[in-house]
Amino acid sequence: MTRGRLEAFSDGVIAIIITIMVLELRPPHGVALRDLLPLLPKLLSYLLSFVFLAIYWNNHHHLMHAVQRVNGRVLWANVHLLFWLSLTPFVTAWMGEHQAAPVPVAVYGAVLLLSGVAYFILTRALLAIHAEDSPLATALGRDWKGKLSVVAYAAAIPLAFVHRWIAIAIYVAVAVLWWVPDTRIERTLERERA
Amino acid sequence: MTRGRLEAFSDGVIAIIITIMVLELRPPHGVALRDLLPLLPKLLSYLLSFVFLAIYWNNHHHLMHAVQRVNGRVLWANVHLLFWLSLTPFVTAWMGEHQAAPVPVAVYGAVLLLSGVAYFILTRALLAIHAEDSPLATALGRDWKGKLSVVAYAAAIPLAFVHRWIAIAIYVAVAVLWWVPDTRIERTLERERA
Amino acid sequence: MTRGRLEAFSDGVIAIIITIMVLELRPPHGVALRDLLPLLPKLLSYLLSFVFLAIYWNNHHHLMHAVQRVNGRVLWANVHLLFWLSLTPFVTAWMGEHQAAPVPVAVYGAVLLLSGVAYFILTRALLAIHAEDSPLATALGRDWKGKLSVVAYAAAIPLAFVHRWIAIAIYVAVAVLWWVPDTRIERTLERERA
Amino acid sequence: MTRGRLEAFSDGVIAIIITIMVLELRPPHGVALRDLLPLLPKLLSYLLSFVFLAIYWNNHHHLMHAVQRVNGRVLWANVHLLFWLSLTPFVTAWMGEHQAAPVPVAVYGAVLLLSGVAYFILTRALLAIHAEDSPLATALGRDWKGKLSVVAYAAAIPLAFVHRWIAIAIYVAVAVLWWVPDTRIERTLERERA
Repeated sequence: MTRGRLEAFSDGVIAIIITIMVLELRPPHGVALRDLLPLLPKLLSYLLSFVFLAIYWNNHHHLMHAVQRVNGRVLWANVHLLFWLSLTPFVTAWMGEHQAAPVPVAVYGAVLLLSGVAYFILTRALLAIHAEDSPLATALGRDWKGKLSVVAYAAAIPLAFVHRWIAIAIYVAVAVLWWVPDTRIERTLERERA
Repeated sequence: MTRGRLEAFSDGVIAIIITIMVLELRPPHGVALRDLLPLLPKLLSYLLSFVFLAIYWNNHHHLMHAVQRVNGRVLWANVHLLFWLSLTPFVTAWMGEHQAAPVPVAVYGAVLLLSGVAYFILTRALLAIHAEDSPLATALGRDWKGKLSVVAYAAAIPLAFVHRWIAIAIYVAVAVLWWVPDTRIERTLERERA
Repeated sequence: MTRGRLEAFSDGVIAIIITIMVLELRPPHGVALRDLLPLLPKLLSYLLSFVFLAIYWNNHHHLMHAVQRVNGRVLWANVHLLFWLSLTPFVTAWMGEHQAAPVPVAVYGAVLLLSGVAYFILTRALLAIHAEDSPLATALGRDWKGKLSVVAYAAAIPLAFVHRWIAIAIYVAVAVLWWVPDTRIERTLERERA
Repeated sequence: MTRGRLEAFSDGVIAIIITIMVLELRPPHGVALRDLLPLLPKLLSYLLSFVFLAIYWNNHHHLMHAVQRVNGRVLWANVHLLFWLSLTPFVTAWMGEHQAAPVPVAVYGAVLLLSGVAYFILTRALLAIHAEDSPLATALGRDWKGKLSVVAYAAAIPLAFVHRWIAIAIYVAVAVLWWVPDTRIERTLERERA
């Protein structure tokens, strides 16, 4: 029941964050199709953040599925994660308004990095109160994807000043990393079950 | 439990989308009843989108009711649907601010079309993991309403440039199509049960 | 389960409506206490709407508690209610910005009236699929409070043009009507149980 | 079930309040890192309110966990609490925009104080319908933290006019008070269980 309410609260906050970002997309003053063009960086910025938040929701969902108990430390680690995620609309708007200038792109990466670190802290807080052979510990495994993401974000921040598209390419690559193999693993699991 | 959280997240996102649209309705500066008149296109635009989102919530609700299992592909198909639905407030505001100029009306239709396609993809992802004689497959049947809606939206987009009211009439007709017969089918079902 | 999701969606929408209204309260430019004074009409307007929406949530909660089944008609009657409630932030802002000018006060009353009518329609849709001796029918009884509220709102709209404070006094009186006796009935019920 | 819906509604409202605050953080016009500097007071103001609302969510969660029944009075005491919490974004924005001027800091404290009082009233309404040896009564105990918080806020309001940082230091101290010892108590409980 504690877990259920933690999930419900997290779902609520993530659902709101993911949705209020769209308030940044102000309709243009003109009524021609080309009036939408200047909005394209904003729209792509929104799309990227939408995917990231959806990945967090999805991972949070899978993580909590395996959780057997929570404590105060877990509740706070979760709130800490939600705090960084809640800054996403702010950095998305900044990056989108300035055709992805280097500093906003780097700051966007910093929020991704801190969200990734917060997620890592949450998994540690959960592992601390679960047995080593618990479903949670098995599901997390070595968590190479989580660790790789954090390293990639940390690398992207300085690289944004070399060229902003390098950093953005890294963000997209991490999103693809999370997106694609999940279904592959699932199919493997299904095959094993059959 | 996975299904429950998918429903809760979708409900949350749709509830927020449907509600933040009303933030576009800014109170007029005057205090006479005629000061509300210029808001009428916005209000009707809002009403149309409210009905569409309510239909999606209603259909999503009925769809998930019959679902027995979900997988990663379904989660992503669902997020994909929510992405297109989340663009509704943006196109609603654009259409409402410009007395339904052709391009905004066509772009509005494009978001409806892509939402319809995303819903179709979601139903395919669900059918792929359910038996052919499952309640889900039976409930969806040939899904002629879903297919007809997508065709109607695709037709409405070019027709918006012939005359905007043709496109809007098609949008309203599709909404009525979903709204009305549902209760008729239900009454038939009730009669059979009795 | 259908009922559960109907409740969850309604709760979500009402929670969002009740909360986004506060976005209208923009912090003043000055930093003295007297700079808050011009915000007082807005704040009182917000308080009144907050109480009304809380009453609707509370009543909806009690209503659904006694419900045994829902159908498509009920789902749509519920969406219809949510539509009128969703216009509350708009009329609250209009009334609050203009020191309760007659027309905004009357239009505010019109939204209350249409919400009240929508709630009445929802109760009829529910009664149509419940037995006459069902807990729902007993709980609703003659529903004199619901009917009296609708009559009071209908009277308040023209009276707003006689004097705006008459209309506002009626709105407050209806709020008090719903608020106070609820606990009295409850205590009676408790006494009977004991 | 009544308790469940009370929790769900409260979670929804608190999740929305905590999230819409971030809408105040408007991206700067410049694209340099120093353009973020003027936003720092707003960001810290947001962080403080985020922590406070998270504490309320956390405490509300623990409180409801021990609740066995609710009545109309409890529902209204809960709505009363949510009303004061809903004013947090407004006072957060006011304090953040004016580098923490004395009056906004004092008004911020007033909203914290009234939220604290509302929470106290909610606990009294709950205790009135629970036995003296109920888990709820045991969990609340003498509630010295709740009482101390209210006294601290009441002291901080006049002290904001002596120096604003005294008041802010008190707000931070209360937040730390709630945050830190919770895990200590939990560990004690765990040790006892073992």
